[in-house]
Amino acid sequence: MEEFKRLTPYREALGMMLEDIKEIPDAEEVPLDEALGRVVAEDVASPIDSPPFDRAAVDGYAVRAEDTFQAREYSPVELRVIDEVPAGGESKARVEPGTAVKLLTGVKIPEGANAVLMQEMAEREGDIIKVLRPVAPGQNVAMKGEDVRKGQVVLKKGQILRPQDLAILKSLGFKSVKVRRKPRVGIIVTGSELIEDFNEEALNRGKILESNSIMLRGLVKQYFGEPVFYGVIPDEEKLIGEAIRRAREENDLVLVTGGSAFGDMDFAHRFVKLLFHGTTIKPGRPIGYGERVFVMSGYPAAVFAQFHLYVKHALAKLVGARNYEVRVRARLTERTPSQLGRVEFVKVWYEDGKAQPVKKRGSGIISSLVESNGYILIPEDSEGYLGGEEVEVVLY
Amino acid sequence: MEEFKRLTPYREALGMMLEDIKEIPDAEEVPLDEALGRVVAEDVASPIDSPPFDRAAVDGYAVRAEDTFQAREYSPVELRVIDEVPAGGESKARVEPGTAVKLLTGVKIPEGANAVLMQEMAEREGDIIKVLRPVAPGQNVAMKGEDVRKGQVVLKKGQILRPQDLAILKSLGFKSVKVRRKPRVGIIVTGSELIEDFNEEALNRGKILESNSIMLRGLVKQYFGEPVFYGVIPDEEKLIGEAIRRAREENDLVLVTGGSAFGDMDFAHRFVKLLFHGTTIKPGRPIGYGERVFVMSGYPAAVFAQFHLYVKHALAKLVGARNYEVRVRARLTERTPSQLGRVEFVKVWYEDGKAQPVKKRGSGIISSLVESNGYILIPEDSEGYLGGEEVEVVLY
Repeated sequence: MEEFKRLTPYREALGMMLEDIKEIPDAEEVPLDEALGRVVAEDVASPIDSPPFDRAAVDGYAVRAEDTFQAREYSPVELRVIDEVPAGGESKARVEPGTAVKLLTGVKIPEGANAVLMQEMAEREGDIIKVLRPVAPGQNVAMKGEDVRKGQVVLKKGQILRPQDLAILKSLGFKSVKVRRKPRVGIIVTGSELIEDFNEEALNRGKILESNSIMLRGLVKQYFGEPVFYGVIPDEEKLIGEAIRRAREENDLVLVTGGSAFGDMDFAHRFVKLLFHGTTIKPGRPIGYGERVFVMSGYPAAVFAQFHLYVKHALAKLVGARNYEVRVRARLTERTPSQLGRVEFVKVWYEDGKAQPVKKRGSGIISSLVESNGYILIPEDSEGYLGGEEVEVVLY
Repeated sequence: MEEFKRLTPYREALGMMLEDIKEIPDAEEVPLDEALGRVVAEDVASPIDSPPFDRAAVDGYAVRAEDTFQAREYSPVELRVIDEVPAGGESKARVEPGTAVKLLTGVKIPEGANAVLMQEMAEREGDIIKVLRPVAPGQNVAMKGEDVRKGQVVLKKGQILRPQDLAILKSLGFKSVKVRRKPRVGIIVTGSELIEDFNEEALNRGKILESNSIMLRGLVKQYFGEPVFYGVIPDEEKLIGEAIRRAREENDLVLVTGGSAFGDMDFAHRFVKLLFHGTTIKPGRPIGYGERVFVMSGYPAAVFAQFHLYVKHALAKLVGARNYEVRVRARLTERTPSQLGRVEFVKVWYEDGKAQPVKKRGSGIISSLVESNGYILIPEDSEGYLGGEEVEVVLY
């Protein structure tokens, strides 16, 4: 019986894989409307100051602050209103001592003025306002460039675009953004025991409903990729070899499930020159990687762990994504033992600052994935954590 | 000048709004392939036991555990192999004392056997195996129903479907799942000062590039909805009234930006019977809600806060979503003052267990939204938090 000669330590294998995978060079310009969730391909600098000039931050009166310094509710200062500007309008008037210009939020501060008096702080009578309180220079003024300065980098390469990121681009005049092309990820599921459709008789004969393909397609979409499914391939060396060859040609990355162990029927690793095969993770130990192909387990819970421990990082590298993981601190609710020499992928339910391990182990157990919302990793040199210890949870 | 007579406390206003909004009754059956991110409309119970029978959890030999109790490496027990079953196959043989059946992972345990001996623990010679170690009853057997029992609820109503949730459905024989219809959300942006396309001359005259629509469309998509944009409407009472009337007819919820204050040009609130108008949040104070319409601010940073404090929860109520927020505990890195009587929406950068307030305030500041990844709320009765205090961050 062939067995793993040596398990490559998790971090070492991860490093080898990430060294091998190169960021996709192609970028594409997509309209802002279609850019949500995409990854910025190069730093974006602002072409303008925002605001482009000093403007009113409230509805009110543009004034010379000095004119208001003596204003009190019981002894107001009087100013003469020499112009009125609607939103999006502009005043050509110059605010001389003793005068004011009425304006709405967003309007350019007229020459001579250096502050805006809120509407509620003035009593209007004809073209005269009584100023009830002093304003300081710059008060209620949005200064030129105070949000973004011309030339300032507003989005860094690798940023995953959120609604507010699209808003800042729009507010600076962009209609599109350069993002990394989505990596195409071929998915091959192998196993003669697998069926795609419910069939009670077949299940009773020992067939198994295949669920890795839909899980991997979803995970690939979540992490920037475009999944391409090559179907369920029976355990026949020739068919698996052909599928892998084709998928490698057509994709940036290939995931093969059910082909990674050293059982009599596990062929996938024979078609790829693997950089490593067998690492110290648990579950998911038999994972292999080489030539842009991951050979993965057949069990969904092992595949899920392998995805998060390796494939996710490969996808992030392909697109150059930053901050693609949500990592939080938590107190472990109970003692969680771990096998020495293994990096244990422990599924947890994170809530309210606490991480509750989801006990069902066994890599055949899909329900543990459903009942959890994150994982912790227990390193090779640890026999586990005590209840109450602080751990880092990666949320999913 | 009309002003807010009374600011409704944040929680009170939120409660009134959530009381008014009813969960959408319609559900739709969608193929699993299209269900990622959708919200489960009713509890899903398993139609089968999974596994459907006791099956091998490893490749090896089905045996009677009793037969192996005496096995030691230096004095192996011999068993006769009476059948060999491939993956997805089935054995009709009965395992009598002194016999074994070779099988692959997933295969049904044949009658008479109660454990599986791992392949590596046996030495094969012809049809005889030498058992090198004892196995316990049940060892290496995935028991019938150990993942999911027939009738067990595997996904609760309100679950937001993740890749692993689709996998469990697939593994239990489902091809589709009943999800809540996506709420249609009409978006109306008002303001004569707004332009949609970059135009330097117009910007220099005081026009402003509109960015609320793309931000709200993205946020609505993130929170289960289908946005419908009604364009930028100038500050004309009749046009705004018509747009609101039409959007209310065609959508489950309507968001109007730039129409919520009491400035001379803010009309939106005149067309809707508001349950509240003006609440204690900061920024975003002038928000109003009534008759499935939110009247919101014009400033993007205020709109963003209003979305997270109110609209997000309305959308979750419409679809009945659970666990739609990621809330984490963090240490505040520095003193963060807050106005008494206001619920302050403080944007933070969360990382490594720490929350760093993003200092730029001012509701005109979009860059603060880009530089943050979450928020904390400082309640009405607090003057702020000290550096080092533990706070709850809601991530976005």
